[in-house]
Amino acid sequence: AEATSESDSSWRPGWLGGKKADKAAKKEAKKKAKEAKKKAEEASKDPYADEPTRLPALRVRTAKPFNAETPTEILADQIITPTDLFYVRHHLPVPKVDPDTYELTVEGEGLRTLKLSLEDLKTKFKKHTITATLQCSGNRRHEMKEIKEVKGLDWDVGAISTAKFSGVRLCDVLAHAGIDYESAEGEGVHHVEFVGLDKDGMTGTGYAASIPVDKAVDPHADVLLAYEMNGEVLPADHGYPVRVVVPGVTGARSVKWVSHIVAGAEESTSQWQQHDYKSFSPNVDWHNVDWTSAPSLQETPVTSAICQPRPGAIIQSEEVTVRGYAFSGGGKDIIRVDVSADSGKNWTTATLHKIPQKAGRAWAWTLWEAEVPVPKEREPSGTVQICAKATDASYNSQPDNVAPIWNLRGVVNNAWHRVQVNVGEEGA
Amino acid sequence: AEATSESDSSWRPGWLGGKKADKAAKKEAKKKAKEAKKKAEEASKDPYADEPTRLPALRVRTAKPFNAETPTEILADQIITPTDLFYVRHHLPVPKVDPDTYELTVEGEGLRTLKLSLEDLKTKFKKHTITATLQCSGNRRHEMKEIKEVKGLDWDVGAISTAKFSGVRLCDVLAHAGIDYESAEGEGVHHVEFVGLDKDGMTGTGYAASIPVDKAVDPHADVLLAYEMNGEVLPADHGYPVRVVVPGVTGARSVKWVSHIVAGAEESTSQWQQHDYKSFSPNVDWHNVDWTSAPSLQETPVTSAICQPRPGAIIQSEEVTVRGYAFSGGGKDIIRVDVSADSGKNWTTATLHKIPQKAGRAWAWTLWEAEVPVPKEREPSGTVQICAKATDASYNSQPDNVAPIWNLRGVVNNAWHRVQVNVGEEGA
Ligand SMILES: [Mo]
Ligand SMILES: [Mo]
Repeated sequence: AEATSESDSSWRPGWLGGKKADKAAKKEAKKKAKEAKKKAEEASKDPYADEPTRLPALRVRTAKPFNAETPTEILADQIITPTDLFYVRHHLPVPKVDPDTYELTVEGEGLRTLKLSLEDLKTKFKKHTITATLQCSGNRRHEMKEIKEVKGLDWDVGAISTAKFSGVRLCDVLAHAGIDYESAEGEGVHHVEFVGLDKDGMTGTGYAASIPVDKAVDPHADVLLAYEMNGEVLPADHGYPVRVVVPGVTGARSVKWVSHIVAGAEESTSQWQQHDYKSFSPNVDWHNVDWTSAPSLQETPVTSAICQPRPGAIIQSEEVTVRGYAFSGGGKDIIRVDVSADSGKNWTTATLHKIPQKAGRAWAWTLWEAEVPVPKEREPSGTVQICAKATDASYNSQPDNVAPIWNLRGVVNNAWHRVQVNVGEEGA
Repeated sequence: AEATSESDSSWRPGWLGGKKADKAAKKEAKKKAKEAKKKAEEASKDPYADEPTRLPALRVRTAKPFNAETPTEILADQIITPTDLFYVRHHLPVPKVDPDTYELTVEGEGLRTLKLSLEDLKTKFKKHTITATLQCSGNRRHEMKEIKEVKGLDWDVGAISTAKFSGVRLCDVLAHAGIDYESAEGEGVHHVEFVGLDKDGMTGTGYAASIPVDKAVDPHADVLLAYEMNGEVLPADHGYPVRVVVPGVTGARSVKWVSHIVAGAEESTSQWQQHDYKSFSPNVDWHNVDWTSAPSLQETPVTSAICQPRPGAIIQSEEVTVRGYAFSGGGKDIIRVDVSADSGKNWTTATLHKIPQKAGRAWAWTLWEAEVPVPKEREPSGTVQICAKATDASYNSQPDNVAPIWNLRGVVNNAWHRVQVNVGEEGA
């Protein structure tokens, strides 16, 4: 066998010293230099130069990567957030994806590997539509920062929006690849990972996150691979051409520009799965955090926020109109919102506005409104504290205060939302 | 037609004046008198005269009907509560059921009616075993009473226990009757009602409650028709010969001595479904309650309780060992318990003790233990307030205070559990 290979040295690569070694080595060096030059050019070029244009009305938190809230003024105006005012939460530059060459790979333990074009997705599977609220894990982080410093975007109450998403059900695609609840158990598949086309120019690492397999294969969990948003083509800022929508689960798992779906025994090893989106006890800080001690955020707790009046607003002295949103993860409906204008001593039950949703599959938020009597007794500063708390279908309600749920990453702040306002003089 | 019936008057009942009317009427009156006598005897007889014997260690709240807590001292000692110390919550006298004539009827819209004997259940369906925690909706009601009067049994922290239940899956029995998620939707079936053999002697009304159909037909919801408890025959106090066990759902839906399962469009019309087991805003009291405004309690919120030390105990001045339980409904695992000995300013994360459970199907509680430093600064009374709060897999955590979740029936109190203790002198 050795003789044979020696007698046919022409096939050998240059570094092994074949006949064409010298020539090949030169060619290789030239190619490498060219690649290095191209890389240097790309590195010097702003990776955010070709980002989509956005409405100035968005409340920008960081420009690169782009992160912006839905304007608070319109947040609780309608169930469906206008697409161009839907909050944007990017970890990396927005990738430009050619729909003609786009390919979704579905693979993993015990799966038949699928390579699906955008056309395949649109024609080979049934189209489904859900109305779902997505919320960044860091929504309402600002209030945590006021207790003690945390690392993360300084979100107010607007890192949450609702849209009608259309696409194919993840469970249908996974079934096509040969996996369901029973076979997953047999194959030792516990998680399904989504990998996006958004990549870090330095490391080449793409955004990735995973969800438990039982959620992925459950037809009633309504997980979508969406290619439409509010009846139109998904915009680049929201994952064109295809994004994952995991309703009732923290936004970080709804991976945009999804290119790979991987079923396996373990969770995604990405930092977004292993570190960033977890909460810890207030006694845990950067010096003593054990990232493995908490599970990754999936379904989210019950929360609410007051969108009107805004902090510092001047309200009338008799009654104040309070409006906002409430939401709970895991498909739990909101059953009640209570509003107080005396820091939580007396409560007014709000009127709820919802869309019809199936039992246990309430993926969209609830908007609410209450006329709340303004107390005669004011705080020493002359102000009044309005607070709101929601209760969901499992009778979970919000914790009273932020401090006891403070965590070093400032995620899932779902304490009562409190807004301090000034009472105007009679006729002012 | 009239002529025909007149010519054949012999078939007429006595009250219509037929030939045998006089004789028949006398016989009828005699029979009625006998029945009335029997009824009077039964009414004068104590319907609770034949109740099972129980351990004196149970903390009795009411004797007739029998309601008793698991002793607090042993509550957090082991995952499985000993059967004879499992909390008992009866609404009516314990029925005596003959296993040989026992029959379970399964019926409803779009169902093939089934009549199943105990033997049928044991031999025609696969046996399943789950470890599940059951909890009365009124567990920890006493703390609510301390805020403002509520109607209901004065439960401390012990109306909760855990057992290994064995029996057949409700979804298998319903599938045998021809109903699953899809057919239920088609037939307009939204609820599955359970009717017990425990009856009110006056009204003849039996205990009844229902659960949503999606829970009833879901194999992963693990709803059982149980005939064994901790590996032995189900005792009379826990539903002999067959009880429903709806894991992760408030105890009131786990109907004991079940005789009828009825699928239908509406929830059970029983008072236990329509009134008793619902929570309202603290601004709702008996004068303004609208029972239809809140959904019936099903899956329960995250909760915890301190079982050691007990209120008023004398603790050492350096460190206190705190032990208790934590539980969340809907199969949500407990991910953390935090304990404080300074009313919630500083927290110690407890060590958790659990049994292995499937993802999203954590039906059993978590026990916990923490060594908590005792603060040098004491309350004016010289006491220290220990408090505990749990967080579940959806990062729901407990509300800080009882007052804002107070409700007229005193149900689902899941506020931080607080225990006031005395600090002993050095060497005391
Ligand atoms: Mo996020
Ligand atoms: Mo109960």
